[in-house]
Amino acid sequence: MKILILNGPNLNLLGTREPHIYGADTLTDVEASCRAMDLAELDFRQSNHEGILIDWIQEARGHTDAIVINPGGFSHTSVAILDALNAFEGRVVEVHVSNIHKREAFRHHSYVSHRADAVIAGLGVEGYRAALRWLAG
Amino acid sequence: MKILILNGPNLNLLGTREPHIYGADTLTDVEASCRAMDLAELDFRQSNHEGILIDWIQEARGHTDAIVINPGGFSHTSVAILDALNAFEGRVVEVHVSNIHKREAFRHHSYVSHRADAVIAGLGVEGYRAALRWLAG
Amino acid sequence: MKILILNGPNLNLLGTREPHIYGADTLTDVEASCRAMDLAELDFRQSNHEGILIDWIQEARGHTDAIVINPGGFSHTSVAILDALNAFEGRVVEVHVSNIHKREAFRHHSYVSHRADAVIAGLGVEGYRAALRWLAG
Amino acid sequence: MKILILNGPNLNLLGTREPHIYGADTLTDVEASCRAMDLAELDFRQSNHEGILIDWIQEARGHTDAIVINPGGFSHTSVAILDALNAFEGRVVEVHVSNIHKREAFRHHSYVSHRADAVIAGLGVEGYRAALRWLAG
Amino acid sequence: MKILILNGPNLNLLGTREPHIYGADTLTDVEASCRAMDLAELDFRQSNHEGILIDWIQEARGHTDAIVINPGGFSHTSVAILDALNAFEGRVVEVHVSNIHKREAFRHHSYVSHRADAVIAGLGVEGYRAALRWLAG
Amino acid sequence: MKILILNGPNLNLLGTREPHIYGADTLTDVEASCRAMDLAELDFRQSNHEGILIDWIQEARGHTDAIVINPGGFSHTSVAILDALNAFEGRVVEVHVSNIHKREAFRHHSYVSHRADAVIAGLGVEGYRAALRWLAG
Amino acid sequence: MKILILNGPNLNLLGTREPHIYGADTLTDVEASCRAMDLAELDFRQSNHEGILIDWIQEARGHTDAIVINPGGFSHTSVAILDALNAFEGRVVEVHVSNIHKREAFRHHSYVSHRADAVIAGLGVEGYRAALRWLAG
Amino acid sequence: MKILILNGPNLNLLGTREPHIYGADTLTDVEASCRAMDLAELDFRQSNHEGILIDWIQEARGHTDAIVINPGGFSHTSVAILDALNAFEGRVVEVHVSNIHKREAFRHHSYVSHRADAVIAGLGVEGYRAALRWLAG
Amino acid sequence: MKILILNGPNLNLLGTREPHIYGADTLTDVEASCRAMDLAELDFRQSNHEGILIDWIQEARGHTDAIVINPGGFSHTSVAILDALNAFEGRVVEVHVSNIHKREAFRHHSYVSHRADAVIAGLGVEGYRAALRWLAG
Amino acid sequence: MKILILNGPNLNLLGTREPHIYGADTLTDVEASCRAMDLAELDFRQSNHEGILIDWIQEARGHTDAIVINPGGFSHTSVAILDALNAFEGRVVEVHVSNIHKREAFRHHSYVSHRADAVIAGLGVEGYRAALRWLAG
Amino acid sequence: MKILILNGPNLNLLGTREPHIYGADTLTDVEASCRAMDLAELDFRQSNHEGILIDWIQEARGHTDAIVINPGGFSHTSVAILDALNAFEGRVVEVHVSNIHKREAFRHHSYVSHRADAVIAGLGVEGYRAALRWLAG
Amino acid sequence: MKILILNGPNLNLLGTREPHIYGADTLTDVEASCRAMDLAELDFRQSNHEGILIDWIQEARGHTDAIVINPGGFSHTSVAILDALNAFEGRVVEVHVSNIHKREAFRHHSYVSHRADAVIAGLGVEGYRAALRWLAG
Repeated sequence: MKILILNGPNLNLLGTREPHIYGADTLTDVEASCRAMDLAELDFRQSNHEGILIDWIQEARGHTDAIVINPGGFSHTSVAILDALNAFEGRVVEVHVSNIHKREAFRHHSYVSHRADAVIAGLGVEGYRAALRWLAG
Repeated sequence: MKILILNGPNLNLLGTREPHIYGADTLTDVEASCRAMDLAELDFRQSNHEGILIDWIQEARGHTDAIVINPGGFSHTSVAILDALNAFEGRVVEVHVSNIHKREAFRHHSYVSHRADAVIAGLGVEGYRAALRWLAG
Repeated sequence: MKILILNGPNLNLLGTREPHIYGADTLTDVEASCRAMDLAELDFRQSNHEGILIDWIQEARGHTDAIVINPGGFSHTSVAILDALNAFEGRVVEVHVSNIHKREAFRHHSYVSHRADAVIAGLGVEGYRAALRWLAG
Repeated sequence: MKILILNGPNLNLLGTREPHIYGADTLTDVEASCRAMDLAELDFRQSNHEGILIDWIQEARGHTDAIVINPGGFSHTSVAILDALNAFEGRVVEVHVSNIHKREAFRHHSYVSHRADAVIAGLGVEGYRAALRWLAG
Repeated sequence: MKILILNGPNLNLLGTREPHIYGADTLTDVEASCRAMDLAELDFRQSNHEGILIDWIQEARGHTDAIVINPGGFSHTSVAILDALNAFEGRVVEVHVSNIHKREAFRHHSYVSHRADAVIAGLGVEGYRAALRWLAG
Repeated sequence: MKILILNGPNLNLLGTREPHIYGADTLTDVEASCRAMDLAELDFRQSNHEGILIDWIQEARGHTDAIVINPGGFSHTSVAILDALNAFEGRVVEVHVSNIHKREAFRHHSYVSHRADAVIAGLGVEGYRAALRWLAG
Repeated sequence: MKILILNGPNLNLLGTREPHIYGADTLTDVEASCRAMDLAELDFRQSNHEGILIDWIQEARGHTDAIVINPGGFSHTSVAILDALNAFEGRVVEVHVSNIHKREAFRHHSYVSHRADAVIAGLGVEGYRAALRWLAG
Repeated sequence: MKILILNGPNLNLLGTREPHIYGADTLTDVEASCRAMDLAELDFRQSNHEGILIDWIQEARGHTDAIVINPGGFSHTSVAILDALNAFEGRVVEVHVSNIHKREAFRHHSYVSHRADAVIAGLGVEGYRAALRWLAG
Repeated sequence: MKILILNGPNLNLLGTREPHIYGADTLTDVEASCRAMDLAELDFRQSNHEGILIDWIQEARGHTDAIVINPGGFSHTSVAILDALNAFEGRVVEVHVSNIHKREAFRHHSYVSHRADAVIAGLGVEGYRAALRWLAG
Repeated sequence: MKILILNGPNLNLLGTREPHIYGADTLTDVEASCRAMDLAELDFRQSNHEGILIDWIQEARGHTDAIVINPGGFSHTSVAILDALNAFEGRVVEVHVSNIHKREAFRHHSYVSHRADAVIAGLGVEGYRAALRWLAG
Repeated sequence: MKILILNGPNLNLLGTREPHIYGADTLTDVEASCRAMDLAELDFRQSNHEGILIDWIQEARGHTDAIVINPGGFSHTSVAILDALNAFEGRVVEVHVSNIHKREAFRHHSYVSHRADAVIAGLGVEGYRAALRWLAG
Repeated sequence: MKILILNGPNLNLLGTREPHIYGADTLTDVEASCRAMDLAELDFRQSNHEGILIDWIQEARGHTDAIVINPGGFSHTSVAILDALNAFEGRVVEVHVSNIHKREAFRHHSYVSHRADAVIAGLGVEGYRAALRWLAG
């Protein structure tokens, strides 16, 4: 089983920015924690560029079983990422480190949720792991 | 560790109603699956009555560590359940079997999400298990 | 043919409260009038409790052909009753004694209408009879 | 007792357009079904022209006891028909063949409902008959 | 000076419908009152048909100096009448017999007001006379 | 007959500010034009102060037959002037020099219109005269 | 004079939940404080169940002079309680321990306020006492 | 191939009204330009009457392959035309001479677009030709 | 203890304007009733001028313990009074003679409520007394 | 004549993603079809990167006569592309392969339409050709 | 060069009210700081009265080159001040001591911004100085 | 002191695009003007790519004292830039060359303003200089 784990803008700063919201784990910790589960062949990436995320989603078509995506701030603003995911035939899980529903109103709506099979918010690093476990189940 | 798992209205029909949305697992399956994890002392309940759910949340104060709640249709309409959870000092995870963000607009807002530490939607039975794993972690 | 006729909160006061809006017929009159039609086996109930109404709708599954429901004030606020009706496989007719579309704005939307096959408002007691006649037709 | 039954735009196509929504009865069937009840002197008409419907409502003043109106698409857009009905002194029943509350959002509001004594939606041909029965009752 | 005075739907009932709102003057009274001023060559018309009103506005182009229009219920719903008036090169005064701003919310917006040079509401018959006086001034 | 004519903020600049919107007549011209009609005993005032306008409206109670008011910018923002007019027992006509319905959206709503018997907009100075003529009629 | 004092969901926790919002007085303190005034025959109750509150309001009809109600979270969501109060012929005072207008937006609207003769928010226990004093006055 | 080309209100004025918006071509020019393409048997009509447009759409059922419609002002207000088109089984192309998306907000929504297979705005006369070419392709 | 009691626009008319809404007590009655309680040193004032109310609130800083304010129509429109109260360090109680929540929609929101510690509406004169009693308690 | 044809995100997948919405033609087919018309010197490009599209629009200034742009998902979210087009002096045609007005509500508004001279939606590949034909006409 | 610097309600309290929002500088400090720049002839004023601010703006017409205005709470509520500024022919700069866009939603809109040539928020005293420097530049 | 000055999309065209809105100064002029102040060590950049701007903001963490940012069209659409600025510990000033509050409604809201310490709009090049002066002050 092949799974692409995509991280959107500013997630490279995880563990260093606003730790009262996002916790102390870094993205490297997240990746290590996911790989340690040994549930699937993982491709783990991060970009601050919407276009690159779209490119990566497109490249995953045909030879990847699922995408776990934390779209960061693009969740709320990118129809283009939604369209790319709509063109992907596998399963999609959307993950947010914090509970976006308790934050500013503009974070309550996610375009990606229109396509995602499941949405996990507020579990921190465990959110990625829960996504993998469900996909592998 | 003691965890109360609450299920709101119509979840007693799980597995029999609208299986294309909610899947084939029954609530008994969910409970069995949770107990099989053996992560905590579980109190697993369901009610179609808002007042009974509020009573149960109140009774959990002081001697329960966390509540996992699938509020069903009350998610979108009950300020009173939110208030009861606000009076609970432990952690709260909100679970939905289906991805409510892909359904009718009135299902996109949950009062419980104002209080929940985390929200999981669309993972089916695995949602309950992911909640327990995070609470036990 | 078996039909469940459900009446929501405050309908036990029919004929005594705000007669300029709801008319002079009591709920007993409504029941007698329905039974006098002799069109179906009727189960006629009223409750002020949302949870009890949900319980009754659930119990009707499998051995009742249709539900005629006057949800009263729950029309506008209960997603849980809508969900229970969604799990019922028979026909559903929503009845309101008064024309709710001429009253306060918050009475113009009914969650039950998302599921009902037909909606009748403003015919008074005749509304129940029209529902039965259509179901029997 | 004299009753005017008015049918708005596209109802002349009843039974031939979108039968999954509107059913198989034609407007001729509706008229025959109403006349067969023999409850009142009926004047049964249809027009695709808003102005003609207004003319007919105005002509009914003074010598007609009630109007049963299925305003079709004009329900949602015509203040002028509402005004004409406001100038009519008898009773008014609004009938829709389908349950407009389950369809597109723009079909949920009817100007005619501001004036109608009663509203019936989703009963098909039976809706007209229920209206007549109530008026005759 | 040539002036076209147009009256929309239901204004033929003026003086007979809802006199507590519209007063006791009939449209014939209005016309007589306007002609008695002897300020201009008047063409005074009424129709319940939107298309006829549009035809008349179009015919007025080129040889009429101004239009006084009481659009009745079409005020709030007709972009087509607005477009016809936009194609008219003379002055336009919109008249309402009652003060539409004190009535239902849907009467507060008038498409015709986007084009009218002036708007008069609530002066009754005097509204037409005030319009003529201003145009003649 | 005694009539109070009130002018709100910036109307003392009439004829000098934005003449493409408000025309070339000054407030002195308006007053002279009104007095020349000799239809009533006039009290003609202007103030930029909301409180003074309220004081004047209150003082008019009991010995004034009608108020003609051009509330200027206070039209859109002053509930207090509306309340003062609600406490006045005579007739009220609201006058605007320009057609406020063709301008910015925030000028489309006037609190004073909730109380005014009639509203005139866009007739320029003639608006005041039309108001007086109607009150005297 | 007989007065029913009703307390809605979670008010049994008063004094123990979120004391920075609701203060330190318990519901027993409130009752004792009200009884100590000796102004009326009091019936003091609390329930977390909407249906029970409706039952109690209905039972008060005919032999109770007034209802003081703190509807808690039901204030914002229950049309059914509003309807029950509409069927009650005596006076109604709505009391909130905290100033709901300074809290989340969904707490700013109360259905009960549509019926209540008076509304008191933010006075704490003194709110109940002020209600009783006014009713007895 | 048979195609009905329908033009709504005020399009008979094309080329003479507001040429800075609609250009200098007349409707006769449009028809000539379409016929010159010789792509299909054309039926080219215009009416200011909503009812007539509906009549024509209904008559086209069964023996016309496609409708090209420029609904003019009815685009934004007519559910009845939408319903008539819904009852038409062929293809539908909506054409606007100007780019309605750059004009007033109320011109941005078209009921006809809910049914049209394609929408063309701002191409002027070429819009009709592009529609025909696509239908013939 | 020193308390400033402020009354906004039109409250000088209390007892004489719209007695079906505001009751028969005059502002002099209110003041006498408050002084008769002998609970605090009172400074009782009224003004129709927003600026004067702001001046008085500012002057109260430093040597007044609390403000009881009935802002009248300014409740709904004055951010400047809110700002002045925000700069006042003592307690603030907002009083309305009528229940503003049962009146027009624009009276449902009060800027002053953003700052007030408590809000009392509908108790008439007793509202002022309840405020004083709470402040003295 | 030089024309730049720009394609936004995911249009490189044309013909392979969601063919029930977007059809079977690939972007290569579109380009070939456009070049075969031989109407202008074409520069045909696609990018998933908003910044690159902006760069290309800027580079076109001064030496390109027109831009045909299918902005894909950026239509609904990119003010920056609108601003770049605002800085372009030539003509702009916006093309959508599907009829965006029949899809999700968030696809009904396009920032690019604020600037485009014309908008074509739902014609598939023919949309590009119609744009070229109009520009060349 | 003559510049009028206007300060609205509560700005006389600057430096003493809510220093965490508005800082420690008093209005006297602001004036001194502006005069020390010696860039223009300054007229520096403050009032809590909307009418006085309007009077001052009107008096500035004809002999003042620019107005720097901090409208305080009137920013969000005064159309009358906007109208006065619209009648002023010179340049206008709007200054806010705090960043109003980070505060309550009702502070995000300023009527004055419709007229101002520039808006500065959050620079504290430096805001006034930046305005003067730009006007003198 | 080190300051990063960031310019978003299309600002490289400053001085050449829409000079009636943005003025005649080029971005090179802006940079020269800023450097001539000699107040801080400046890093002056521009990009049309959202991702690059995010990268640059991230790189500034830890060794830059402040960011002056003109986000151009991204102001209104980029949550991701807001998030990057939230992760930056220094001061932030948002600059707009034109007064965005006088332009289209979609330009009135800026995500960046949620984070910025100050916002300057409409001062042209002087806006950048005012920002630097405040940061250096």
